[in-house]
Amino acid sequence: MLAILLVSAASSAAIAQQAPKPEQVIKWRQSVYQTLAWYNGRIKASVDGTYNKDDVIRAANGIAAIANSGLGALYPAGTETGKGWRETSVKPELFTDGAKAGEAARKFISEANELAKVANTGDAAAVKVQFGKLGATCKGCHDDFRKKD
Amino acid sequence: MLAILLVSAASSAAIAQQAPKPEQVIKWRQSVYQTLAWYNGRIKASVDGTYNKDDVIRAANGIAAIANSGLGALYPAGTETGKGWRETSVKPELFTDGAKAGEAARKFISEANELAKVANTGDAAAVKVQFGKLGATCKGCHDDFRKKD
Repeated sequence: MLAILLVSAASSAAIAQQAPKPEQVIKWRQSVYQTLAWYNGRIKASVDGTYNKDDVIRAANGIAAIANSGLGALYPAGTETGKGWRETSVKPELFTDGAKAGEAARKFISEANELAKVANTGDAAAVKVQFGKLGATCKGCHDDFRKKD
Repeated sequence: MLAILLVSAASSAAIAQQAPKPEQVIKWRQSVYQTLAWYNGRIKASVDGTYNKDDVIRAANGIAAIANSGLGALYPAGTETGKGWRETSVKPELFTDGAKAGEAARKFISEANELAKVANTGDAAAVKVQFGKLGATCKGCHDDFRKKD
């Protein structure tokens, strides 16, 4: 009985820890995409202007680590609407078409990991091509799952 | 003369790309710290509750990649005050005591990289210790360079 109570208490504690408020989750996910935008802008500046190998590596590693970090956890039930830093722009389809959302996520992760690899070579032309492929996965997901501003 | 003009135009374009508006930079930096907070909370949930090795690895890799991504670029002159998502909480000291800020950044990067290494071992007790060391660098920097809410 004590064991059950302890397990129950531990589970409750774990659940409490693992269930931040919807507005906090929405704030996190808006922040994650802004962080990606920061890295994106830095790579764009390099491929369109003076190429900075080290900066591209750092930014591409940032994108890849975020892509691999389990972004799906930022879309729990209860965050279909609501305000983080601002009202969420997510479309309901992201929550109702899990297969399509999962496929979009897999493409993003795959192209992000490839960009991190290519960035390490310092081949600016190859980075530009791969950066375009990554951008296409961003745009595809935005078209399908993000409301127009 | 044409060459000079072209070089000048290219430089101007590069500068334009590399100088986003202060409010955008502040928004990015607030977003970066929120992203770190998301990862931090996930690791905390693991070390305080049920340990999830894969989740800790993903979160620790996210923190390390961000730490290594050149956060100093988020503190250009002109962003001492201003509003991103909200008014910045940065103290003026961050801009006037470069040596101290640089040392704080180096400590953060070092402990973050160590945490990513330790996370890969799956040794929950060691992660807890290293997570504490990383947290101390966060707190130290906040104490020195971030206004109280």
